[in-house]
Amino acid sequence: MTLTTGPVDAYPEVLRALSRTVLYDYDPAFQHFYENVCLKLQKALETKTVPVILQGEPVLGLQAVAASFFNKADIVLNLVSGAYGDGFGEWVRPHCGELLELRTPFNEVIDVEKVRQMLASRPDISVVSICHHDTPSGTINPVAAIGQAVREHGALFVVDAVSSFAGMDIMPEPCCVDMFVTGPNKCMGCPPGLTILGVSERAWKKMHANPTAPRDSVLSILDWEHAWKAGQPFPYTPSVSEINALDAGLDRYLEEGPQAVWTRHDLTARACRAGIKAAGLEIWAAHDSIASPTTTVVRLPQTVTDTDVLEVARRRYGVIFSIGRGETKGRVIRIGHMGPTAQPIYAVAGLAALCGALGELGVDVDAGAACAAALSVIRQ
Amino acid sequence: MTLTTGPVDAYPEVLRALSRTVLYDYDPAFQHFYENVCLKLQKALETKTVPVILQGEPVLGLQAVAASFFNKADIVLNLVSGAYGDGFGEWVRPHCGELLELRTPFNEVIDVEKVRQMLASRPDISVVSICHHDTPSGTINPVAAIGQAVREHGALFVVDAVSSFAGMDIMPEPCCVDMFVTGPNKCMGCPPGLTILGVSERAWKKMHANPTAPRDSVLSILDWEHAWKAGQPFPYTPSVSEINALDAGLDRYLEEGPQAVWTRHDLTARACRAGIKAAGLEIWAAHDSIASPTTTVVRLPQTVTDTDVLEVARRRYGVIFSIGRGETKGRVIRIGHMGPTAQPIYAVAGLAALCGALGELGVDVDAGAACAAALSVIRQ
Amino acid sequence: MTLTTGPVDAYPEVLRALSRTVLYDYDPAFQHFYENVCLKLQKALETKTVPVILQGEPVLGLQAVAASFFNKADIVLNLVSGAYGDGFGEWVRPHCGELLELRTPFNEVIDVEKVRQMLASRPDISVVSICHHDTPSGTINPVAAIGQAVREHGALFVVDAVSSFAGMDIMPEPCCVDMFVTGPNKCMGCPPGLTILGVSERAWKKMHANPTAPRDSVLSILDWEHAWKAGQPFPYTPSVSEINALDAGLDRYLEEGPQAVWTRHDLTARACRAGIKAAGLEIWAAHDSIASPTTTVVRLPQTVTDTDVLEVARRRYGVIFSIGRGETKGRVIRIGHMGPTAQPIYAVAGLAALCGALGELGVDVDAGAACAAALSVIRQ
Amino acid sequence: MTLTTGPVDAYPEVLRALSRTVLYDYDPAFQHFYENVCLKLQKALETKTVPVILQGEPVLGLQAVAASFFNKADIVLNLVSGAYGDGFGEWVRPHCGELLELRTPFNEVIDVEKVRQMLASRPDISVVSICHHDTPSGTINPVAAIGQAVREHGALFVVDAVSSFAGMDIMPEPCCVDMFVTGPNKCMGCPPGLTILGVSERAWKKMHANPTAPRDSVLSILDWEHAWKAGQPFPYTPSVSEINALDAGLDRYLEEGPQAVWTRHDLTARACRAGIKAAGLEIWAAHDSIASPTTTVVRLPQTVTDTDVLEVARRRYGVIFSIGRGETKGRVIRIGHMGPTAQPIYAVAGLAALCGALGELGVDVDAGAACAAALSVIRQ
Repeated sequence: MTLTTGPVDAYPEVLRALSRTVLYDYDPAFQHFYENVCLKLQKALETKTVPVILQGEPVLGLQAVAASFFNKADIVLNLVSGAYGDGFGEWVRPHCGELLELRTPFNEVIDVEKVRQMLASRPDISVVSICHHDTPSGTINPVAAIGQAVREHGALFVVDAVSSFAGMDIMPEPCCVDMFVTGPNKCMGCPPGLTILGVSERAWKKMHANPTAPRDSVLSILDWEHAWKAGQPFPYTPSVSEINALDAGLDRYLEEGPQAVWTRHDLTARACRAGIKAAGLEIWAAHDSIASPTTTVVRLPQTVTDTDVLEVARRRYGVIFSIGRGETKGRVIRIGHMGPTAQPIYAVAGLAALCGALGELGVDVDAGAACAAALSVIRQ
Repeated sequence: MTLTTGPVDAYPEVLRALSRTVLYDYDPAFQHFYENVCLKLQKALETKTVPVILQGEPVLGLQAVAASFFNKADIVLNLVSGAYGDGFGEWVRPHCGELLELRTPFNEVIDVEKVRQMLASRPDISVVSICHHDTPSGTINPVAAIGQAVREHGALFVVDAVSSFAGMDIMPEPCCVDMFVTGPNKCMGCPPGLTILGVSERAWKKMHANPTAPRDSVLSILDWEHAWKAGQPFPYTPSVSEINALDAGLDRYLEEGPQAVWTRHDLTARACRAGIKAAGLEIWAAHDSIASPTTTVVRLPQTVTDTDVLEVARRRYGVIFSIGRGETKGRVIRIGHMGPTAQPIYAVAGLAALCGALGELGVDVDAGAACAAALSVIRQ
Repeated sequence: MTLTTGPVDAYPEVLRALSRTVLYDYDPAFQHFYENVCLKLQKALETKTVPVILQGEPVLGLQAVAASFFNKADIVLNLVSGAYGDGFGEWVRPHCGELLELRTPFNEVIDVEKVRQMLASRPDISVVSICHHDTPSGTINPVAAIGQAVREHGALFVVDAVSSFAGMDIMPEPCCVDMFVTGPNKCMGCPPGLTILGVSERAWKKMHANPTAPRDSVLSILDWEHAWKAGQPFPYTPSVSEINALDAGLDRYLEEGPQAVWTRHDLTARACRAGIKAAGLEIWAAHDSIASPTTTVVRLPQTVTDTDVLEVARRRYGVIFSIGRGETKGRVIRIGHMGPTAQPIYAVAGLAALCGALGELGVDVDAGAACAAALSVIRQ
Repeated sequence: MTLTTGPVDAYPEVLRALSRTVLYDYDPAFQHFYENVCLKLQKALETKTVPVILQGEPVLGLQAVAASFFNKADIVLNLVSGAYGDGFGEWVRPHCGELLELRTPFNEVIDVEKVRQMLASRPDISVVSICHHDTPSGTINPVAAIGQAVREHGALFVVDAVSSFAGMDIMPEPCCVDMFVTGPNKCMGCPPGLTILGVSERAWKKMHANPTAPRDSVLSILDWEHAWKAGQPFPYTPSVSEINALDAGLDRYLEEGPQAVWTRHDLTARACRAGIKAAGLEIWAAHDSIASPTTTVVRLPQTVTDTDVLEVARRRYGVIFSIGRGETKGRVIRIGHMGPTAQPIYAVAGLAALCGALGELGVDVDAGAACAAALSVIRQ
């Protein structure tokens, strides 16, 4: 039972789609199929433009954005509330003119007012970037409000929504996002191997005008601008089987209904958090209102190590969790609620395994209270 | 029936492996699995070092090699006998000090003596690069002999064996190759999405000493040096499902036996070439001895267009071929013999579809003679 | 390459459906799914009543029909033009009052006029039975005309359409069939393991009135009468994975369009027969007009044995054929054109393998002429 | 999450095996494969003879045994401790000379002493039959001790071990069983569609001597006696895909190790029972020592209906349970621990869903105590 923050296990229909025949990329059947997947993506992202698929997991996407979108004329404000937000700044730095940062403790989220102040103090800021959901912290930044401030300022807005999109209500256009980076391997329940980019018209214009934007490169976004259209060439061979998987993941997402999918992610996370507290444990996030519906980050008692907890949970209960990263490394256990395991019964199973493991390691946790509290949330 | 030069359809066992459970990359079960796949790769490549898997199809691999292996101190001799060899030079050029080229007509292969002469005339050449099998031409360069010359010269040798490895007897070490680039999506019958690199100790040393070799980047090879060992971190999330596929592809390759696999590729290609000639058509390669066992490139009569042939072959016979690329574009049809279709009966089916399509388009071809000639080769 | 008369390889989408989650048979999700599959079957059979699925391959179905449909009051006329028609009589005999037979040589089909004469001479005949397509002979009986005669006589009509349904235009109601036995494992490209029964209202009435019709038995048809309705109990656990496969097979059949499916079966068989004749070989069927669109039965030259031909075709060409059965055993090779291999290119491959094998065994066949003749049919 | 008493969800490797290519049954590759599966079965059943596979789920097997094994000369003692034992008598009755029964309340198991007394009082008893694990009661009969008594008496012993084999230590030979009926669709985690028969030499002898044993029938066991050997004909087409699944199920069972598999079934059931009691609920079985390791039957409070519990558990928690059957119908909920869900974490999930559903329906259950008690068993 994989209750991690990704890779997560794929939906059964996605696993079956992975075993579809591998078509030749220039077979007209594949070309039309690829176009169709891109149009479904557009429906899922609710964008005016057709999203771009890059042929590598979102680390490729984030680097491609750093290289394609930014240039030396850019004054960038990177908003940092966790390890991934922090890391994105490092990828952007060599490509931009100046990199400003607004940081917050990693158990808190960015304050919109501080963003407004920063923007007011530096009218030359041309791009603002943020990680929507920093999984190592399990916190959700107020991207809609920040996006509004960025738009008013006249800057462009880059958002990493890799681990939140499709698990909650986050769409690029209502949040004034120009470059929206996500992937199928988290809440969509697909395997890792692709990046999905929602690119606004302003973002396309910026990239076209960018003299340092890569071309003929795996880091190029521009190369893929028209590739979604049947009959247009691919810059290089797309990952056919991953596209097959994405197709099935999109079908599932759209057929179940985004609202229904978000609701079960949220319910699972709420049940999990209630259980954690009832067990006598603590959530990493400073308050419940900023806690993620797709990941619950649990602060570990100081008497145990994260790797011991992982080992016992796996050996005794067959449950796999994630550990922390960056600042939270060694201090937390992360329980993912993504895709197929974003169902409340998995919150109970996760709580049982975590409390069981902690108990075996000598921590005084109330597993019964944890499960009961989770059930009580589920039943409401 | 996909008779292309890749992507080719995957083996059934590979398709099934694609639908394996997606494990978390830090699950010990996955870590040991990944190590095991790398060790199987080592067995397949017969190398002293453990090969590297990069998480993107070989275009990523070739760019990563260009960026990681070369630097401004390098005088590079790029040997060009086709479109891919040509293109590799363009990726290397910005990374090296000087790029020399030795070219041959694209229906011929590189002459070892000319390489020796070139090396003799420029003792400062530090790296030689070549594409072993340029699929747009369907020709096989004499890599073993060239490698010998390169080694004697003291230079390093970079070989693109993407579309030949696992379809014929080509291994890095007997050919003195330091950087051997291939992928699972051709003769191994896996989907596109990974690069396989055979890296000699000299190549590791060179990359370590290379100040411009990327780190913390999807273009980095160095980041992956130790990732194959269980317990070592991955630079970023590997493409789990593609690794699952590669595992099954390797099992099939090693269980069937490399020699047996090469033999059926060769027999299929020989049957196909015999049929092409009996039909009254011409092979692109200047002579049979340099023709590839994994791709047959057929020169098109001038009265038809490649796209018309493709369309009729697909609509009427359900057979998908590849067209040319670069210099051969518009002038040839390419028939792939890779992985699951590297079986002689597919040569007959391919000949039937090609001759059928050409006949329908008014070309005077003898389909019966083509099939009979192929059968005659098969029976021997 | 499996070119047999069944089991044939399944369509890729059917193979994938086989790997769907195994649902509990009383899970409402499964109950609705099962109902839905039965309603799709009804659409495919174009019947007023909902077809019945029995949980075993058609041998179970034929025995269940023998036991459930017939009783000692029945005077049965069994029409025999091949091995399966012959065998059905043996299953019916113990259940009926008297078994009459009208036989024809096994390379011919039943003559409607003789049926009319027989019916006129025995007004007490209550049931007529026939095998529509006897695969060991590869011949198609004129079921529509016979059904008309049977209906006029007032008898009921039992038809085994196992290896013809979904490969040609054969539907129970236009042919006045009361008990129509078929299965998913031939022209529908599904695995063996289920029987499909089209049961007219008259047939239901007859079985209800039959005191010896089994109940609480795997041979019971009556037990399954209402099982298709969600909420109704199953007599015993249905073969969940086979139902999953049937669902996918039906989707494929209905989406491609029955007419299109029949057309490609017919074209493949015509191409195959043309090739056989051009090779210098003979079709078993006395004339082309009665030859099956789903199986081509080839008379073997006396100098070779069927098992030798099979062995060489398999070893050298990777092609699997069927041999004869009953009267045709040892005298023929059977080439199936069913489901995924009912595509003309497989006729060419089959001809190549058969001619190749015969040639290797010393028979003077013209393989080139065979392939050319097939292509010529395909191109028209 | 399917926690039923079967069909249960299949292991992932079994689902993948279902999607293997469908081979022709007379393809030598299939013939050898089938033989190999039968030999693996022999290894799993630890028998001297090669087990028989029948092509239908165990209802077919039980009927085939009734028809093939028994005849009018037999005086049969049927031991009845539940619904399935009861039903088997009904199938045997028409085939035997006299049917005696020894019954026990359905929450108890058969007392060996009473069997001995019965045998002593009727020296003419020739066959004794029993259901090892009657899932509607969740109780395990002492088959080894009974088998000893039967063997001493000189009678033959027929055991239905459908829902216990592969989930606990039950093997035909140590229990003196002559006809051992089981199937892959319970503890082996395969789909329903096959019967497995362990047949002793004495049983073969008895069937050979039985004049009423069916031949040329789906109810025949004798027809299949030699079918396991490659080169021998099949009586009719085997269910190829189900055999593929069984092969994978056997591999998993033998590789994990029978003892390890039994241990996790047992641990899961013990955790479940501890939780049920801690919740304030009751097990159906009169005492823990006879409770099954593969199914937990929970007595329902009288204030709720089984169908309401099922509906809430499914809708709210996504968990599917089984209801009772025969005498236990309407009075219990059955939680299966079979195959892939025979892992302790599923006991916790099942308890949570059951307690959650009961709580929502107004029953006063202590879900927290249930989960805690289960965890406490698991941790020991």
